Amino acid sequence: MLTGAEMHALVERMYPFCRSITGDGVRETLAVVGEHIPLRLHEVPTGTAVLDWTVPQEWNIRDAYVADAAGRRVIDFRESNLHVVGYSVPVDETMSLAELRGHLHTLPETPSWVPYRTSYYSPAWGFCLAQDVLDALPDGDYRVKIDSTLADGSLTYGEHTVPGQVGNEVIVSCHICHPSLANDNLAGIAVAVSLAQALAAEKPFHTYRFLFMPGTIGAITWLARNGERVDRVKHGVVLACAGDRGSLTYKRSRRGDADIDHVMAHVLKDKPHEIRDFSPYGYDERQFCSPGFNLGVGSLTRTPYAGYPEYHTSADNPGFVSPESMEDTLDTLRTAFSVLDRNRRFVNLSPYGEPQLGKRGLYDSLGGRSDAKDAQLAMLWVLSYSDGATSLLDIAERAGLPFDAVDGAARALQAAGLLKE
Amino acid sequence: MLTGAEMHALVERMYPFCRSITGDGVRETLAVVGEHIPLRLHEVPTGTAVLDWTVPQEWNIRDAYVADAAGRRVIDFRESNLHVVGYSVPVDETMSLAELRGHLHTLPETPSWVPYRTSYYSPAWGFCLAQDVLDALPDGDYRVKIDSTLADGSLTYGEHTVPGQVGNEVIVSCHICHPSLANDNLAGIAVAVSLAQALAAEKPFHTYRFLFMPGTIGAITWLARNGERVDRVKHGVVLACAGDRGSLTYKRSRRGDADIDHVMAHVLKDKPHEIRDFSPYGYDERQFCSPGFNLGVGSLTRTPYAGYPEYHTSADNPGFVSPESMEDTLDTLRTAFSVLDRNRRFVNLSPYGEPQLGKRGLYDSLGGRSDAKDAQLAMLWVLSYSDGATSLLDIAERAGLPFDAVDGAARALQAAGLLKE
Amino acid sequence: MLTGAEMHALVERMYPFCRSITGDGVRETLAVVGEHIPLRLHEVPTGTAVLDWTVPQEWNIRDAYVADAAGRRVIDFRESNLHVVGYSVPVDETMSLAELRGHLHTLPETPSWVPYRTSYYSPAWGFCLAQDVLDALPDGDYRVKIDSTLADGSLTYGEHTVPGQVGNEVIVSCHICHPSLANDNLAGIAVAVSLAQALAAEKPFHTYRFLFMPGTIGAITWLARNGERVDRVKHGVVLACAGDRGSLTYKRSRRGDADIDHVMAHVLKDKPHEIRDFSPYGYDERQFCSPGFNLGVGSLTRTPYAGYPEYHTSADNPGFVSPESMEDTLDTLRTAFSVLDRNRRFVNLSPYGEPQLGKRGLYDSLGGRSDAKDAQLAMLWVLSYSDGATSLLDIAERAGLPFDAVDGAARALQAAGLLKE
Repeated sequence: MLTGAEMHALVERMYPFCRSITGDGVRETLAVVGEHIPLRLHEVPTGTAVLDWTVPQEWNIRDAYVADAAGRRVIDFRESNLHVVGYSVPVDETMSLAELRGHLHTLPETPSWVPYRTSYYSPAWGFCLAQDVLDALPDGDYRVKIDSTLADGSLTYGEHTVPGQVGNEVIVSCHICHPSLANDNLAGIAVAVSLAQALAAEKPFHTYRFLFMPGTIGAITWLARNGERVDRVKHGVVLACAGDRGSLTYKRSRRGDADIDHVMAHVLKDKPHEIRDFSPYGYDERQFCSPGFNLGVGSLTRTPYAGYPEYHTSADNPGFVSPESMEDTLDTLRTAFSVLDRNRRFVNLSPYGEPQLGKRGLYDSLGGRSDAKDAQLAMLWVLSYSDGATSLLDIAERAGLPFDAVDGAARALQAAGLLKE
Repeated sequence: MLTGAEMHALVERMYPFCRSITGDGVRETLAVVGEHIPLRLHEVPTGTAVLDWTVPQEWNIRDAYVADAAGRRVIDFRESNLHVVGYSVPVDETMSLAELRGHLHTLPETPSWVPYRTSYYSPAWGFCLAQDVLDALPDGDYRVKIDSTLADGSLTYGEHTVPGQVGNEVIVSCHICHPSLANDNLAGIAVAVSLAQALAAEKPFHTYRFLFMPGTIGAITWLARNGERVDRVKHGVVLACAGDRGSLTYKRSRRGDADIDHVMAHVLKDKPHEIRDFSPYGYDERQFCSPGFNLGVGSLTRTPYAGYPEYHTSADNPGFVSPESMEDTLDTLRTAFSVLDRNRRFVNLSPYGEPQLGKRGLYDSLGGRSDAKDAQLAMLWVLSYSDGATSLLDIAERAGLPFDAVDGAARALQAAGLLKE
Repeated sequence: MLTGAEMHALVERMYPFCRSITGDGVRETLAVVGEHIPLRLHEVPTGTAVLDWTVPQEWNIRDAYVADAAGRRVIDFRESNLHVVGYSVPVDETMSLAELRGHLHTLPETPSWVPYRTSYYSPAWGFCLAQDVLDALPDGDYRVKIDSTLADGSLTYGEHTVPGQVGNEVIVSCHICHPSLANDNLAGIAVAVSLAQALAAEKPFHTYRFLFMPGTIGAITWLARNGERVDRVKHGVVLACAGDRGSLTYKRSRRGDADIDHVMAHVLKDKPHEIRDFSPYGYDERQFCSPGFNLGVGSLTRTPYAGYPEYHTSADNPGFVSPESMEDTLDTLRTAFSVLDRNRRFVNLSPYGEPQLGKRGLYDSLGGRSDAKDAQLAMLWVLSYSDGATSLLDIAERAGLPFDAVDGAARALQAAGLLKE
């Protein structure tokens, strides 16, 4: 399991790669991930029909710049891959600044930051730059060069599985299509890697499937190719923006009362956090929760999607994410999955009157005391509410008892033959 | 469409007619309404069985007074029709003041006002007068004369229909049985007339049926004679007290969550208003919402039923209602019916993953920006929640988006073949 | 019906008996109860299987003490039966104080009080005493004598029935297994006795069954032996801690919305009180509400189970309970059962439009007044909501009308043929 410092180093290492929804930047990223956890890589050819979509051509880029009349690069892809609009078609022209302006994107309100822009599904080209830099450009002619290719190829994604005691799956999904943006989503990738390592050491109950995929088209491709597996996905979390210094935000699944929604609310309740209802906008929960699938998948972030000024700008750099925040995200997910794995539903096999716990060694023999212990109370609550539909977490919350006490009570009762799952 | 001033003039014109649940005052009123909108008139004979009731004899009155020994009229029907208890049987007697008192009705707490009283279903006679006038009457004998007739005849009501694109109906019902009372319900009648004119100009989605009927027995008669039509009544509003200077009050249907209840709450939420739960007391919502029918019919008033001191007194005169209030009631209903007509339920035809909106020209091609527009968000919300049961208004409220944006999104998606109704 | 003073005298009279879950103390107690109300006594032999339990051996005790070397009794059962742990096996030994300590129970925080302890299902012996007394005992040898017997015998409980107009039953259950503890539960027994007398004088609607049984094993025995009767138990109250000076606490049935839960909340709402959700810990509601039975049985106490320092100590003596508190508990239950007996469900036989109440003499003939009376409003509410599922209490609470008015309206409507049960 990676420490906070190691997760941060991983973010820094992957930061320079020029990721997009396809192309070699994605492959480089997955190769680094694959150094830490075994990855099964998928290459899906351009043109493949996936649900309502089609896998697009593959985009690769070698160089790009705008140079002044003296040949000096005033905008240079080699400095930051954010400078080129993602999926820009090749261009090699000389044009006036006036003509060029229609292809330039800036952020006038934060004039020293470079925005992140893409044009995946509409052929176009453009550059992103600081407003300050644009303001300083003199009129005149500029050489505009984008050495990119858009060609048949494939869409790449990676899967890692932590086998569990049962085949029912929990998915953890990270988008890997953003170039030099640290919180969105290199921090999410780093936390997912460390989480996968931690789970592997624990032989979890559920099978955990980690998905490293380009946003939207990646999730749609995975869903299109995994029709049968989807039925086994019982829970999931889309993980993004996992490293900024804000507190955690959980966005509920579209169902709103899925087990993962209860579990996340439970584990977050003792720390600063926010819980939001589902909205059909954000990360790949959009796809997993689309009404035809409607999976029990929520989204965990720190400061949420589009909720911070640095979002989708050059200010979302490795300094924007902290080792401590990534560790906190990781710890929260580990706790959540520990509860999720134990949050089972039982049936009381002795529902008429209370079973005699004492003769089974489950109850204090000395009566009359008023300080019944949590463990004994928990057994009574589990017996009273285990109807096959009410989960242990439901019972813990109704009883006002720690989940661990309720889980322990259920194990003891099951061992005594009083409960079945 | 009548302006506020025109509606007020209509109230003033109808004010002197001596309306009751039957008789020529009702016919005069419907004749005036018929000058503005075409009315289909119904005459239902005395003795006709209608649900648990029977159409009563028709009441007409020509004159009535109480005169002192000198022949001076101390209570005079010619001054105000409120002076005679509605449905008073004929009388022509001389009696002492002491004997007469048992037939006199006053309002001791507002001693200058004349109350409104009726005795429809129990043969009786009486006069209503100001307490001040009563107090000034000297002892002695008085001539008591009511020149009325109770005889077989008919109950009269009128219907006006604004045809829609579908046969499903919205009813707007006004009682027309109150004599010289302006807010209750001449203002309601005037607003209904103007509303019918406005709707006719718009070719609405639903068919709108305006009912001008005497209270209780009129609604019961209509329901008894329209057994099949009732199944087509999907929504409705009972309109009364539409002109006083108080803010609007909407009383929910007995269902409590009918579409009209949602719509009215939605259109009222940005102005001072009150929403009340259903109660089986008030106007003809009592009949439309009786449990056997249980229609989605609410009641819109300004200050509600029996909620102002002038209620059912001579102080509810044309000065008590204002053109501005009637215009506000009218505008609110026009807005409400505009939402109601568009508040449809759709089914997402591409529910697995998000459909690719971009290839259909429904989505910005430039990605990365964080300021997605309402129109695009609205499409995602409509796609996510259109399951055939959730209405566009439900979606708008869940999304926190304007209804118009959600309605527009649904139209665009339907045009693109992504939704069906 | 016993007065408060008479109930208190009954508590004092039963206080010295050495009750336990079996034995002659129980029989003495039931004999005293039987002086006031006829009791059917049951003796269930040792070894009888009852649900998951087995009726234990019968325990009787004649004497017990710890005596010092001089033969002086330093702990003496004859002073208080609390001094011996319930179900102590016989012992006759001499041992050092050090050895004896393992069998002694005290309350260090309230050093002058003697605790109440039992060991029903695990063979053991022990003494309970004040911490002050223990602290004063000199080292040395002590004679330890418990003259008890544990032998095959029977478990004893008593039933009293107040026949009603219908066979459906309301149970009132009191535990009778606690020795010298006044509030827990002699006050409950005394209130139950008086309540049974009061009900008998009234020919109630439901049949009321009073159960005087040892805690847990008694309720389990009754449930095991009354499989068919359980289906007739529609409502019930477990009555305990009925006499302390605190305000009333009602604990809901496990169902949470049983009729008895609504009724108790209704009758308590105008006095200081607390309502608690069900928990599977407390008195015999644990058994009646076990999920296999899940009866509509709540629990009424004043200060609840284990909620006062005197609970299960020698300080729960007759001075701890007051005549006024027992009268208040009694009055509350009488009111509750009066509502429960009348809280019926009707069906409106004339659901299409309002029935014409006037022709049936149920409605004022003079119209126009705005001060409609509760009785008339109540009839409209009953007609509107009587669908066979909604109770009169539901209607009263929805209408904001007194239950008595709604009940009276239902009777009048039923008499007029407009409602059926």
